[in-house]
Amino acid sequence: METEKQEQFEQTLRDWPRLESERRIELFRALPLDEAENLIDCMNINDQAELLATMNVSERRSWLRYLDLDDIADILLELPKEEADEWLGLLDARTHDKVSALLAYAEDDAGGLMNPSFARVRPTMTVEAAINYLHIQAQENISLEHVYVLDSDQQLIGEVSLGALLAANNNDLITELAEKDVVTCTEYMDQEEVGTLFSRFGLTAMPVVDVQGRMIGLITADDVIDVIQEEATEDVQKYGGMEALDESYLRTSISELIKKRVGWLIMLLIGEMLTTFAMAGFENELNRVWYLAIFIPLIISSGGNSGSQASTLVIRAMAMGEVKLRDWFQVFKRELGAGTAMGLILGVIGMMRVLLGEFFLNGVYGNLYLHLAYTIAISVAGVVLLGCLAGSTLPFILRLFRFDPASASAPFVATFVDVTGLLVYLTVARLLIIPNVL
Amino acid sequence: METEKQEQFEQTLRDWPRLESERRIELFRALPLDEAENLIDCMNINDQAELLATMNVSERRSWLRYLDLDDIADILLELPKEEADEWLGLLDARTHDKVSALLAYAEDDAGGLMNPSFARVRPTMTVEAAINYLHIQAQENISLEHVYVLDSDQQLIGEVSLGALLAANNNDLITELAEKDVVTCTEYMDQEEVGTLFSRFGLTAMPVVDVQGRMIGLITADDVIDVIQEEATEDVQKYGGMEALDESYLRTSISELIKKRVGWLIMLLIGEMLTTFAMAGFENELNRVWYLAIFIPLIISSGGNSGSQASTLVIRAMAMGEVKLRDWFQVFKRELGAGTAMGLILGVIGMMRVLLGEFFLNGVYGNLYLHLAYTIAISVAGVVLLGCLAGSTLPFILRLFRFDPASASAPFVATFVDVTGLLVYLTVARLLIIPNVL
Repeated sequence: METEKQEQFEQTLRDWPRLESERRIELFRALPLDEAENLIDCMNINDQAELLATMNVSERRSWLRYLDLDDIADILLELPKEEADEWLGLLDARTHDKVSALLAYAEDDAGGLMNPSFARVRPTMTVEAAINYLHIQAQENISLEHVYVLDSDQQLIGEVSLGALLAANNNDLITELAEKDVVTCTEYMDQEEVGTLFSRFGLTAMPVVDVQGRMIGLITADDVIDVIQEEATEDVQKYGGMEALDESYLRTSISELIKKRVGWLIMLLIGEMLTTFAMAGFENELNRVWYLAIFIPLIISSGGNSGSQASTLVIRAMAMGEVKLRDWFQVFKRELGAGTAMGLILGVIGMMRVLLGEFFLNGVYGNLYLHLAYTIAISVAGVVLLGCLAGSTLPFILRLFRFDPASASAPFVATFVDVTGLLVYLTVARLLIIPNVL
Repeated sequence: METEKQEQFEQTLRDWPRLESERRIELFRALPLDEAENLIDCMNINDQAELLATMNVSERRSWLRYLDLDDIADILLELPKEEADEWLGLLDARTHDKVSALLAYAEDDAGGLMNPSFARVRPTMTVEAAINYLHIQAQENISLEHVYVLDSDQQLIGEVSLGALLAANNNDLITELAEKDVVTCTEYMDQEEVGTLFSRFGLTAMPVVDVQGRMIGLITADDVIDVIQEEATEDVQKYGGMEALDESYLRTSISELIKKRVGWLIMLLIGEMLTTFAMAGFENELNRVWYLAIFIPLIISSGGNSGSQASTLVIRAMAMGEVKLRDWFQVFKRELGAGTAMGLILGVIGMMRVLLGEFFLNGVYGNLYLHLAYTIAISVAGVVLLGCLAGSTLPFILRLFRFDPASASAPFVATFVDVTGLLVYLTVARLLIIPNVL
């Protein structure tokens, strides 16, 4: 479409999440049909469901008829049971059955992503017969972007490109033209895996087959792009130390926001309380050398930061399928190396902080400033290494016990390292400094 | 392909990143041609480049001929100038020119993603003429999945589906069948934006047009899926408080890992040093009430955690285009509400920690335990709110100054909140507790 029209349209889409439902339906009704169709095609499922809900029955019926079967199914999944049945009742018998079939799948199943209507030809057909057969399917506006070869038993034999069809002679047989190597998935494969298959094989479409190898639907790349965005957003929010939101940030109510976040905050707070017990055990040190406290945030945060780096690296690599459980030792060795090197560098910097402090704010640490400098150097180095090892190992442990590695979020790792890091610091202080306190 | 064959193939792909280059070329040469083609199609650019580099010249020439033009260009971009020219020399004149044209684009440009060869028909053609014309293009194995209508001046008029072509009469005119509303992008659009367009409009392909509106190439969803994965990984790694890696974690050398991570760690450490200065200003408090130190990790980490949640939420929403600069105040209000509520809840829990500590470890806080309880409650509540506000506002500030909001990573926000949170805590303590210390 012309640039300005496209820009205006994109603007509407961007504003959409911020509009009240009354405003939305108003705006939608005002559009010319083709633009309205464009708009509803571009909405996410939540927004489609909400828009349809604000329509009157006849509007809703006609728009339900317009939408793809897989989209209708996704929308109905958003609704309470009774309402879903009611809307289902608005569909003609044939569509009704197909959609009900899709509804049987869990929301994250490949089956939920697939479109049950796709272009097909028989292996025994001649090119001419196949093209005539495709004519008919084209009139039922089934997309011909991808054409599959199915035998009389609906078994998937292969794929045939329209290019090959056009290039061939009228009485060549389809079976000779069919590309047999087709990547497929089953109806119950998790949608995240489907996304990985698409990116791994560079697919634009993938047939869904049942256990008998019968093709029952087609997943196209546009559906998968949404899935990948969704999954990435969920992961990112988990890394951030909260539950993933069901809707976009601005569309999520404040109470919902709190529900998704406060649980983790409380868990982390309770975990962090271990630090208070750890430190209570060092009353003597803290009591006699008050300035030990000054370096506590510096030291524990160094561990939290290196841990956050290690865990996000490993978690993402796991999500991308680059790192498997069996790679743990390899990862551990890498983090051992990197952590030691980075720990030494940061340790030296921490030590310099003490020495400079000594010379410029002269004498605040008394005659123990050298002991303190060593304590800080050793503690920072140790805690940074600790962060790398814990941050890289925790995702493996979660994976091992079938939890989502993404839950080993930066805050979770940081909390763990805070506790252990304090023990390192105060123990080193106990050994190096306290004996020299008169 | 048959399940076991597909599984075995996927296994090879999964193992690939872990194989040495010698092993890779060995394994690749051992494969039958069709499987070798599958394998190289599924590799990422780095791996393709490395594999080609280990080949002898004649192997390299034939495989370069096999690859898509846009892939060849991406591969050459990975190489040092001289080598790239050398490889370019292996191509026939026509391919050579097309690839050189692609090389002119920056790696993140839409132009770099596009394939310059695509199926085209003229608006003035009859359906019959168009189909014959497509025959010829099909023989040059140009994909017919998407067919575009270009006038004699290469201006993009629209798109025509092969379905429509087959359904139409032989002497209908293409211009009547063309779907005019086609979403396009320019050659210099950033690839991240391209990804957003694909997911927003649910596209499977998008034409690239130059400033004169001439179609110069086609971007297909499979290329975009890779881009989206890539961009998500980069963002995640930045959230984790480091520079994004150029390669997969396991393929990145340890020295490279350190280079990408230690810089941020040093910056954060130096930032964290502000906490030592902040606390040095409270020598009197820390010296006289040693157990104030006990709660420091508890308090600053609460702020770090709520800040990490807020910043990841806002950063991801910005990346998805859901939140724009102008939404700052709306976001701020939401975080003010959520932060206050969550702060109060956590404050009460923190307070209970002190009271329980008092009753079970009896008397360690002397007669000031109530004052301490209030201090902790107020500080935790304040710091949690502070975290929400800082974490949600920092990405906007970075955006405002044209920095990548993703750099407002969890560790960055945590460091900021550590410093300010300490000032809150120790100030409250100074006001509530110290006056009552005899």
